[in-house]
Amino acid sequence: MSMNGAAAVAFAKDHGDRFVEELKALLRIPSVSTDPARAGDTRRAAEFVAAELTRIGMENVHLIETSTEESMTAGASGPAQVVPARIGHPLVYAEWLHAPGKPTVLCYGHYDVQPAEPLDEWKSPPFEPTERDGNLYARGAVDDKGQMWMHVKALESLMVAGGGKLPINVRVIVEGEEEVGGEGIAAFVRDFGDQLHADVALVSDTEMFAPDLPTLCVGLRGMIYTEIEVQGARTDLHSGMYGGAAPNPFVALAQIIAQLKDAEGKILIPGFYDKVQAPSDAELAAWKLLPFDEEEYRHAEVGSVALTGESGYSVLERTWARPTLDVHGMPGGFIGAGAKTVIPARALAKVSLRLVPDMTPAESFRLYKEYVETLCPKGCTLEVRLIHSGDPIVVSTDNEFVRAATEAMHTVFGKETVFVRGGGSIPIVGDFTRELGLPVVMMGFGLPDDNLHAPNEKFHLANFHRGVESIVRWFGILSTLTALES
Amino acid sequence: MSMNGAAAVAFAKDHGDRFVEELKALLRIPSVSTDPARAGDTRRAAEFVAAELTRIGMENVHLIETSTEESMTAGASGPAQVVPARIGHPLVYAEWLHAPGKPTVLCYGHYDVQPAEPLDEWKSPPFEPTERDGNLYARGAVDDKGQMWMHVKALESLMVAGGGKLPINVRVIVEGEEEVGGEGIAAFVRDFGDQLHADVALVSDTEMFAPDLPTLCVGLRGMIYTEIEVQGARTDLHSGMYGGAAPNPFVALAQIIAQLKDAEGKILIPGFYDKVQAPSDAELAAWKLLPFDEEEYRHAEVGSVALTGESGYSVLERTWARPTLDVHGMPGGFIGAGAKTVIPARALAKVSLRLVPDMTPAESFRLYKEYVETLCPKGCTLEVRLIHSGDPIVVSTDNEFVRAATEAMHTVFGKETVFVRGGGSIPIVGDFTRELGLPVVMMGFGLPDDNLHAPNEKFHLANFHRGVESIVRWFGILSTLTALES
Repeated sequence: MSMNGAAAVAFAKDHGDRFVEELKALLRIPSVSTDPARAGDTRRAAEFVAAELTRIGMENVHLIETSTEESMTAGASGPAQVVPARIGHPLVYAEWLHAPGKPTVLCYGHYDVQPAEPLDEWKSPPFEPTERDGNLYARGAVDDKGQMWMHVKALESLMVAGGGKLPINVRVIVEGEEEVGGEGIAAFVRDFGDQLHADVALVSDTEMFAPDLPTLCVGLRGMIYTEIEVQGARTDLHSGMYGGAAPNPFVALAQIIAQLKDAEGKILIPGFYDKVQAPSDAELAAWKLLPFDEEEYRHAEVGSVALTGESGYSVLERTWARPTLDVHGMPGGFIGAGAKTVIPARALAKVSLRLVPDMTPAESFRLYKEYVETLCPKGCTLEVRLIHSGDPIVVSTDNEFVRAATEAMHTVFGKETVFVRGGGSIPIVGDFTRELGLPVVMMGFGLPDDNLHAPNEKFHLANFHRGVESIVRWFGILSTLTALES
Repeated sequence: MSMNGAAAVAFAKDHGDRFVEELKALLRIPSVSTDPARAGDTRRAAEFVAAELTRIGMENVHLIETSTEESMTAGASGPAQVVPARIGHPLVYAEWLHAPGKPTVLCYGHYDVQPAEPLDEWKSPPFEPTERDGNLYARGAVDDKGQMWMHVKALESLMVAGGGKLPINVRVIVEGEEEVGGEGIAAFVRDFGDQLHADVALVSDTEMFAPDLPTLCVGLRGMIYTEIEVQGARTDLHSGMYGGAAPNPFVALAQIIAQLKDAEGKILIPGFYDKVQAPSDAELAAWKLLPFDEEEYRHAEVGSVALTGESGYSVLERTWARPTLDVHGMPGGFIGAGAKTVIPARALAKVSLRLVPDMTPAESFRLYKEYVETLCPKGCTLEVRLIHSGDPIVVSTDNEFVRAATEAMHTVFGKETVFVRGGGSIPIVGDFTRELGLPVVMMGFGLPDDNLHAPNEKFHLANFHRGVESIVRWFGILSTLTALES
């Protein structure tokens, strides 16, 4: 390791407490991207990140708007209309490109977070970051504000150690729509990809397989997130007067959902599994060697009386390499305390399906929609909507960026790095691969019990600090490589 | 008709506008009995009714508490505990008993109302009564504040016309828990029934079969209102990481509900139909003569693309004389706008079943609960709770009170009275019949499109006034009968 690299590691260790305090300030901003009422907070988080990138010496720092508030459009056969645009949260861009002959890394993260509900299950308020037992609890602690902050703090440490210079070229792109489908960054990558020119992308939005086990994620599931809306009667009706004649949209949705997935977890959509590619024998063999205790997982992580899912597949296969279907909520009707004898006119089901290589969101949604439409119960009409989607992905492990990452993490953790997949979706990884042709290194420092998307999300602070050091060391190794920019 | 009776009718006509303004004041009180936050408003509605009964000259007017706030109890094998009691809304009692030798009528109504949600579907706010097109729109307009107010205003008219005397004896009991199961009045009737000693009960909480068609209701369905709560994982989980291994409680509920009722509307609970008694051939024949156009009903009342329900039964049979099952809402998970990829730990279904003679709530709930428990999907646990229940009922039509009612309404409407059943539940009718041995006259003046329990509930004001007159005339006829009090 170079002198500067060692100095950067020392700086990060000396200033780790400050890094955490800064992260807490960011976590106090409730940047819930799916909530229109939080649009101002979400922008405030973007400005916070941009201000810090500027302060540490990054250049050309600016926000990139991803949509306008409203747009005027003229239909082919009608008057112009004001079309409310989707909520657009800005991208944060920064760069430092003064290391000629050295590689360029594109650092990606996101500053938006999931909704915090149900609030009453949080032990400390979701937007008041609280340290307990070596963990930092807050919505976004690990997904992804905390991991994105590792990048910023690694860059600060290297910049200080290098007297205002980085050992390699760096671009930073931080989005605010990851939790709502990432439409803005996808469009930017597609239309302005040359502005993100790099040799490799670094994504820290995944987790380690086990505490102290350095992990690179090399595959992710894709998804389609949908809504099924069923309409029965024109208005809400009294179940005493109309029960027995009026269609019930919740019963209809129940009948539909029961025909989407069988009791064994098999998805019943015709043709849905046709494009599924099984992992290689080598990958399956490597998964078998991972430290995984199914009973411990059931007890400590899931906490249910039994695990579910397709028979004949291990838990890792089911959650990494098999498509799945989940229902997230069923809005409509009466959900208050007590009793209301209403037959609601409408009800919704929020249904998502996880996809694996080589499924595509477009084809999967088409098969799903066509099938659901055949299931519409008597007396009802239904609409199937796609809310957002992402491609499944597997990334190459046969390149020097991955080898450098395993080396950097080996130094920090003292253990060999394992390759795993993730069950979730990070659509931008597909965009970087497909649109920019970039190898992607998914170096994540979350833990399996970090409660992503759930109450009491946390980040183990030791892993935050190890993440900063791993990235510093990875950049140091990359600085010894020949530039690959074309 | 006596001179006093004619004077009472004239008084009611002269003061009809004031009666409606008073009703509006009552409707402005949001006495939603199921909502703990409205407990104060609900009591205020009781006090409003009691004050008016006092003002018009009724005697012994007072509120009867139906529960205490908390109660201390000592378990058989443990320390005393403070047990939070259910919400108790008071009964309003009044009487006038100075007509010796004349019959005594027990007038029943309720001052509580259903929740008003969904608020955004109301054309005018639910608790700001608004007149449009001869109708009065407000939550509770017809169910039951408006119909209960007919009783009060008929009593006022008779009292004024009689110079401070009524032509018969009257007791009034008005409850505030009808929409939440009527537990308080049921206990009062059971334990203090002698305080309600009467010859006949008058209940105005039903509807006319068609506009201008005087109607007596002679049968009501009972019900059990339940919740099924399913627990999967211990906490909410991320569907990317755990989809394929963690149980999904909404999918579980869908699978359960789909096995409760088939696509044809037949309830699949073993033994559920065993006690169902078909209506008599005479009753079925009379129903066939009612002015009922199924296509008009589908189009104008229900507004769905088709009607649903068991094949082989007419709409009137399905809604009056067959048990049914409805789902009212499925709380839990994510119901906001946008997307949240959560596998919720818990989800609920609010499920009610309508019962017909000779089914009983206790037996029906037992069969239902036992069956649901057999349907619990893998990985989940479930709990089935009874929220409230009511007996199904048919009342005798062969008595002079019913004949007097048909005569009174014939005078007001100029048409023969029809006998129908109602699909809803009025548990107190069963209590009056079973506990007090009283014949019950269900003389209601709602209309089929009055939107009970739905947005834009209304009362056709002409029917409010005809209701007052019908009750005045009925009391007049009853005053010519010999007393039946024992």
